[in-house]
Amino acid sequence: MSVDSQTWEGVPLSQLFPEEKLGWTGYIEWEDKPDRKKIAQAILKTKKFTPSPEFQLEPLPKTNPILIGYRWKEYHEALGLRSIVDFSWETVQKEKPGMIHVLDFPYNGETPRAALLEGKLTDNMYHFVRNHGGVPDIDEDAFELEIGGLVNQPIKLSMKDLKDPNKFPQITATVTLQCSGTRRIEQIQEYPGEGDELIQAPWGEGAIGTAVYRGVPLKTVLKRACGGLLPEAKHVELIGADTYFKKGNVYNYAVSVPTRKMRMKEEVILAWEMNGEPLPKIHGFPLRAVVTGIIGARSTKWLYKINALEEPSLGPVQAQEYIYFTSQIGKQNAKYSNGFSIQNMPVSSAIIFPQDKEVIIHDGSIELRGWAYSGGGNWPERVEVSPDGGHVWYAVDQDNMTEKHYHAWRLWKISVPVDAEGWIEVCVRTWDSSCNTEPTFVRSAWNWDLHVTSSAHRIKLYSVNTTRPATAQRLAAFAAHGQSFTPITGPTKWTVESTEDFLAEMRRHPRDPDN
Amino acid sequence: MSVDSQTWEGVPLSQLFPEEKLGWTGYIEWEDKPDRKKIAQAILKTKKFTPSPEFQLEPLPKTNPILIGYRWKEYHEALGLRSIVDFSWETVQKEKPGMIHVLDFPYNGETPRAALLEGKLTDNMYHFVRNHGGVPDIDEDAFELEIGGLVNQPIKLSMKDLKDPNKFPQITATVTLQCSGTRRIEQIQEYPGEGDELIQAPWGEGAIGTAVYRGVPLKTVLKRACGGLLPEAKHVELIGADTYFKKGNVYNYAVSVPTRKMRMKEEVILAWEMNGEPLPKIHGFPLRAVVTGIIGARSTKWLYKINALEEPSLGPVQAQEYIYFTSQIGKQNAKYSNGFSIQNMPVSSAIIFPQDKEVIIHDGSIELRGWAYSGGGNWPERVEVSPDGGHVWYAVDQDNMTEKHYHAWRLWKISVPVDAEGWIEVCVRTWDSSCNTEPTFVRSAWNWDLHVTSSAHRIKLYSVNTTRPATAQRLAAFAAHGQSFTPITGPTKWTVESTEDFLAEMRRHPRDPDN
Repeated sequence: MSVDSQTWEGVPLSQLFPEEKLGWTGYIEWEDKPDRKKIAQAILKTKKFTPSPEFQLEPLPKTNPILIGYRWKEYHEALGLRSIVDFSWETVQKEKPGMIHVLDFPYNGETPRAALLEGKLTDNMYHFVRNHGGVPDIDEDAFELEIGGLVNQPIKLSMKDLKDPNKFPQITATVTLQCSGTRRIEQIQEYPGEGDELIQAPWGEGAIGTAVYRGVPLKTVLKRACGGLLPEAKHVELIGADTYFKKGNVYNYAVSVPTRKMRMKEEVILAWEMNGEPLPKIHGFPLRAVVTGIIGARSTKWLYKINALEEPSLGPVQAQEYIYFTSQIGKQNAKYSNGFSIQNMPVSSAIIFPQDKEVIIHDGSIELRGWAYSGGGNWPERVEVSPDGGHVWYAVDQDNMTEKHYHAWRLWKISVPVDAEGWIEVCVRTWDSSCNTEPTFVRSAWNWDLHVTSSAHRIKLYSVNTTRPATAQRLAAFAAHGQSFTPITGPTKWTVESTEDFLAEMRRHPRDPDN
Repeated sequence: MSVDSQTWEGVPLSQLFPEEKLGWTGYIEWEDKPDRKKIAQAILKTKKFTPSPEFQLEPLPKTNPILIGYRWKEYHEALGLRSIVDFSWETVQKEKPGMIHVLDFPYNGETPRAALLEGKLTDNMYHFVRNHGGVPDIDEDAFELEIGGLVNQPIKLSMKDLKDPNKFPQITATVTLQCSGTRRIEQIQEYPGEGDELIQAPWGEGAIGTAVYRGVPLKTVLKRACGGLLPEAKHVELIGADTYFKKGNVYNYAVSVPTRKMRMKEEVILAWEMNGEPLPKIHGFPLRAVVTGIIGARSTKWLYKINALEEPSLGPVQAQEYIYFTSQIGKQNAKYSNGFSIQNMPVSSAIIFPQDKEVIIHDGSIELRGWAYSGGGNWPERVEVSPDGGHVWYAVDQDNMTEKHYHAWRLWKISVPVDAEGWIEVCVRTWDSSCNTEPTFVRSAWNWDLHVTSSAHRIKLYSVNTTRPATAQRLAAFAAHGQSFTPITGPTKWTVESTEDFLAEMRRHPRDPDN
């Protein structure tokens, strides 16, 4: 069915929800159009939508994409916006073909593990993506950024204005962005939590990435272009051109950060360049916010409007989501006001190699590699690894960590002594520049919305220590019999001890006492 | 393909592996026929068999039967014994239709949870079954039990002899039998272990059951019919009529118990009656051993031969399996001699209701029910339940436990106070009459062969406490909106807090400090 054939009370949807700005494909203005919102609400009320897939009480599918966003596709279709869905997936295929596609729409892509540790900077093609809506397709020349609200002088700026170094001195900054859902899968596996209509992606350790962004500080733009903020302005709302749905209503993506967050010029950047390249469309072309040290959700993509406000944004992403609840809050009593709003990210870290449940054949030590990060302007000072589930900890040598940045992760590697065989639990924790560290167990920080998995990252490894003669002998026997040692659950096909040897041993140490 | 058309070097298999005793269908003698064993070994070597299913590194299928024993069916087929496979499944359908069929062949059936706690005695139709081979179909009148080895007088006894109270005084005993793999799934979920060619069933809490058995004490039979044991006899081998396979060889099922195990007359019973009924075929008709307080594997079914020995049986089930390893032993170094042989069962217990991951809506206390058992002639003295993962423990009132037996479980129930909401971990531990109790965590007793899951049984419950006003109000709202509270991962469809209420709260307790 073509968009034009879809109507509401006789009017084509394309007329009700027009792309009003030339060169701004896939952008519908909702926030300035309360009547339009009401019509959309009325249309959504008449439809039935596919429930979100159950992936917490059931194992995750082993497909790629892992999850399919039927419901959000249908929301868009109901309003005649199918083309946004299609363009988004085309963009994924062009810009992000090699990702772990955690959710196909709105697109959530996780960095494959090798790319994650390739270097301090994540390749644009592999940097994680957590979108809340479809990808708009905006012509840079047609683009303008509107700044209003509690400023002395509301203004509209073109990309040409923003990129003019005579108007606004540019900066570059090395910034790690992290979804507050990074490592959510660990919480899900322990205890399922909220199943939002916008799927809370079951992320592993790859919903984090680092890039050098070029742009202009919002602080400077507000001062030079708008004559500064009015005294009552305490928050800056950042609005994106993507369309967002929540409980039958439609919105443009909107969040906010406190004005205090702009105390240093690199803290809120209006960015158009990522690792020396123009921003990929999927990362917010032509303009995005990069808010350092804070939950990724504040770094609005396709940023086309900024409002200075007295109070935080009432956009649902800001006011109703990314709330950090105590463990006594859940479906039975959660409100938007009884958790605190996630802003700065706490210290956290992850082991990337080896991976959970790997069999490690080694000679008394195991090499581990991973990342460590802390938000709010803190940086990882010390990374510690425990090969015994959190009892004894070994610090990573500073020579084995990448350099410090105020707003970026550090990659690390360490070789830890392991004598034990069989299943061991290896975990990592990081101490940041404010002496914060991570709780030891997932349960310690479990929360209903499954955010901020900040507990020590813990993996299970099956350790096979070849310095033990019996083990070396057994591995040689596997080779001699032409049988693979893995998977460990595969039966050993030959008789591992002759009856003579068995009886000799049993006669030396009988099963039963003699008297 | 009919059996007669299968040949080996021109000879029909039915001639090589005959059912030599009239009225003993599905029984082939292997132990007395070394040449026959060699031919079977040669035949098995020429064939390829389907690998056992991987169910430890993958989630269990949600089917019933859960697992299919292709490999063991093919072993039987290779020797022309397909009819044993078919008769076994027919017997399951007749005698055990309502079970959780954990493995279809050799048959492993687990008791459904309601039947498990129906009463102190488990209904024959629901008593768990762990078979190591197919079900033989033996005519009671044709049956005879052969007793030999280190006895003063080898003898053959008919069922008529055994049941003659003038020859042997009969006893009845209330006996719990338990597979040493009971609750194995908990070990698997933490850390996978050995994948034997005979599938180590991924049992839950239902591989245990209790019945009143009638029979004669082996002690009495040995004394009266055989003139007693020779002085050097230290073990009694119990051989069953089922066919067993191990690493390309074929056997009759054989295990042994120390002669010391017969110190009391109820400790090794030759039984023909189960809960007042003749033994079901699947439980060993016409005669089985019931060895009290000890791993179920020693209670040989279709028991047709007893040998008094100086050393334990070399049958693979006795000598090579049911070995209890330390955690440093695994695929890399396991031998038959470097673990100890599982005989007496340790103290253990399980919560049967509620079940793992249930949502419990309650008014400040939660009722729990389950079983507690200890082997070796011990009995459960005290059952304790912890609603907080093992920190605070509440004892079950003796009035809420079934009566004591020397060799049987006790069923229990308790109502424990629970104030907390959200995910709680409830666990149970039992103290037995020798003051033994259970380790707190699965890891504490994990072992490569995944036997004897004796750690405190632990379940996760999502607690919803209606004595909390906010919770009562939210449940009422779910009812008013006609939405089910479960599954908890289902999105709450309405807006749980109005913008006015939210703003009022935010203004009382703003997100950010004022200065």
